[in-house]
Amino acid sequence: MPYSGLAGKLLGSAGAELGDVVEVRTGDEKRSGILMPHHDFSNPQIVTLKLPNGYNIGVRIAEGSVVKVVSRKEDKPRGRQTLPADPAKKDVAVISTGGTIASYVDYRTGAVHPAISAEELVFSVPELTDLCNVRAKVLYSILSENMKVAHWQGLAREIAKELNAGAVGVIVPHGTDTMGFTSAALSFMLKNLTGPVVCVGSQRSSDRPSSDAIMNLLAATRLCVETDFAEVVVLMHGETSDSHCLAHRGTKVRKMHSSRRDAFKSINVDPVARIEGPEITFLSSYNRRSKGSVELMDKMDGSASMLHFYPGFVAEHFDLIAQNVKGIVIAGTGLGHVSEEIVGSIKRAVSKGVHVYITTQCLHGMVNLNVYSTGRDMIAAGAVPLGDMLPETAYVKLMWSMGQTDDPSEVRKLMLTNIAGEFSARRVV
Amino acid sequence: MPYSGLAGKLLGSAGAELGDVVEVRTGDEKRSGILMPHHDFSNPQIVTLKLPNGYNIGVRIAEGSVVKVVSRKEDKPRGRQTLPADPAKKDVAVISTGGTIASYVDYRTGAVHPAISAEELVFSVPELTDLCNVRAKVLYSILSENMKVAHWQGLAREIAKELNAGAVGVIVPHGTDTMGFTSAALSFMLKNLTGPVVCVGSQRSSDRPSSDAIMNLLAATRLCVETDFAEVVVLMHGETSDSHCLAHRGTKVRKMHSSRRDAFKSINVDPVARIEGPEITFLSSYNRRSKGSVELMDKMDGSASMLHFYPGFVAEHFDLIAQNVKGIVIAGTGLGHVSEEIVGSIKRAVSKGVHVYITTQCLHGMVNLNVYSTGRDMIAAGAVPLGDMLPETAYVKLMWSMGQTDDPSEVRKLMLTNIAGEFSARRVV
Repeated sequence: MPYSGLAGKLLGSAGAELGDVVEVRTGDEKRSGILMPHHDFSNPQIVTLKLPNGYNIGVRIAEGSVVKVVSRKEDKPRGRQTLPADPAKKDVAVISTGGTIASYVDYRTGAVHPAISAEELVFSVPELTDLCNVRAKVLYSILSENMKVAHWQGLAREIAKELNAGAVGVIVPHGTDTMGFTSAALSFMLKNLTGPVVCVGSQRSSDRPSSDAIMNLLAATRLCVETDFAEVVVLMHGETSDSHCLAHRGTKVRKMHSSRRDAFKSINVDPVARIEGPEITFLSSYNRRSKGSVELMDKMDGSASMLHFYPGFVAEHFDLIAQNVKGIVIAGTGLGHVSEEIVGSIKRAVSKGVHVYITTQCLHGMVNLNVYSTGRDMIAAGAVPLGDMLPETAYVKLMWSMGQTDDPSEVRKLMLTNIAGEFSARRVV
Repeated sequence: MPYSGLAGKLLGSAGAELGDVVEVRTGDEKRSGILMPHHDFSNPQIVTLKLPNGYNIGVRIAEGSVVKVVSRKEDKPRGRQTLPADPAKKDVAVISTGGTIASYVDYRTGAVHPAISAEELVFSVPELTDLCNVRAKVLYSILSENMKVAHWQGLAREIAKELNAGAVGVIVPHGTDTMGFTSAALSFMLKNLTGPVVCVGSQRSSDRPSSDAIMNLLAATRLCVETDFAEVVVLMHGETSDSHCLAHRGTKVRKMHSSRRDAFKSINVDPVARIEGPEITFLSSYNRRSKGSVELMDKMDGSASMLHFYPGFVAEHFDLIAQNVKGIVIAGTGLGHVSEEIVGSIKRAVSKGVHVYITTQCLHGMVNLNVYSTGRDMIAAGAVPLGDMLPETAYVKLMWSMGQTDDPSEVRKLMLTNIAGEFSARRVV
């Protein structure tokens, strides 16, 4: 029994275990529901119950509270080994990395912590096990703003392992802040995918009534179990209400709102799929499941920077960064422009062997360095335009390309090759 | 006659002057239209004619071409002094800074150059003079990626001068790349506005048939002449077709597409006004014309940087920049987050007196540093969150605030005061 303090005492006396339906009575107030996991930082006087409507609530208990077990949970999952395996169902791996989707609210401070285990996550959404056998694992438990290249690599290795061990798909619960970066990294690192890799987050923590976690997880599971789809995607709500989810190609997706449930948007392309209840509609062409094994190409060279140009950008600052990295992705203005001073910086950097690639901070649309004199000067200085590739995706791809080869012309060739849909197939205007 | 070479010779022999309707015949081909200005870089064998439908075309001439004058232009504007002044009409100042709206295509290379004069610009849109007396001036002739703080200051001074000399509004033709930065800077620098300041650009150069310049200029003129509106706005197409224009508040607008005519979007708020032909509909509350004089607050301290956080952002790079500036605006992920390493950098920077302000790279939505432990650590380190202010606006405002006062607490007070609509009045979710 992970509960401590007064809650632990009362629950223990009642013989209540996680998953049991319990009733908590304090004075005239009476609430009952499934007993949910307790978290280290939670107030020891709060018991978390899952109500019949699916929402979790925190019930405050006091010295006089009475706890009784209403009914026992028959199959209490107790970690990876004990999740029920039904030979008639397909296996889906859940590799949790942290973030809101795998977090809980600290009732002392109201703040959100990443701590829940993958087992707890799956356990809190029992509908998942109706659809598949869940192989859950907590790989990391971090807020996504702390993700690094090494985390992407470890995650890619784990995903390849699960798919090659027979999972029909992998769900990656992930913090939303940098989920678009991770999905881009996985898109380049995993080749010959035999099933989908679905990065899924939530904008409301999973023990809050308004959480979008459950619907997103269920839609991700359906995509894994019920389709022939095999790409890396980000899957989130399609609008603020719970009407449907959208799966966005991993290289073309960006978090475009700080808090809305439909914060993630496909940029310059349509989303890949729409998932509405049990109905999955593909909105664009996609890669089907490959035969054979997933190939892991997880080498990355982290010596890169992404710089957004703006009026007043000091050339000396650019030069300082350029002296410390092997590659730079610039998010220029409009069609990809920088000031004439920064054109000089680009020239100096390129002459020292630094890769310089150009994207647009407009995010939507293509770069084009052939329209204005500035752009042509940038090309003459050695900058390479990247079409409609997102700045974030270009930054990730540059590190990946530099990890694949030391030959600058091979890096350039990789950067300009459409590897995982990072260039739109058609021109979008 | 500014035409040279063969074109100059043939036009000269025919006695043709700018504004005359001329006919150019080469073999069986015959085109006629108003003779438009020639540009230094243009092919000397191309004559630019404005057709009756309003479009400009380049007509290639050859040794055997015949040029004749069909009719004389009655009132040929020849620079600022000669634009017709009608005492029954209001005065509108046009202060041109350059960019596509005031540029032309070099027919040798197909590239666009900023060179046309304000007089030429106005002359090419004769409908302007039906609506008002135009006081045109070329202040700069630069591509907007080369705009600096000093340009914003010079522009603000010129605008204040024109408004205080009786202009009912000022139109600022401007390159679109950094027009959102300029509109933010003008929003803070101009107080007690007696009329609108309308930054207007185009995504297709004004001598191209598909140019959006004319419609944007006409809508800007109407906003100046026909309303009691008095704020700084960016005015561009509202959609890719020519159906209507939108005026966006100068502090809440961002270029969100590299090439579409409706590239500019109001972020986190509605546009201020919709202009459809002669009909102007206000979509939000706005400041009306002030009495008295426009007050100029054009001091700025350019010692600031804007840094976008991303996974792999090297703390030492942050520290290098922080050692060289007085203020930093961070575009964090999600609710405004950075990695724990960068929290350390923020702490070091703040302890040395550097201002650190937080916005979100999601662009849409608010920052909130109270939800996650990272955010609370950032606040403890001395970072100050800026609600739903755009990163670009925050960067401009920080330079302006540091220009107003040397007192750090006064800078902070200014940053957190809603001066020009940079904070949304209501929370937008």
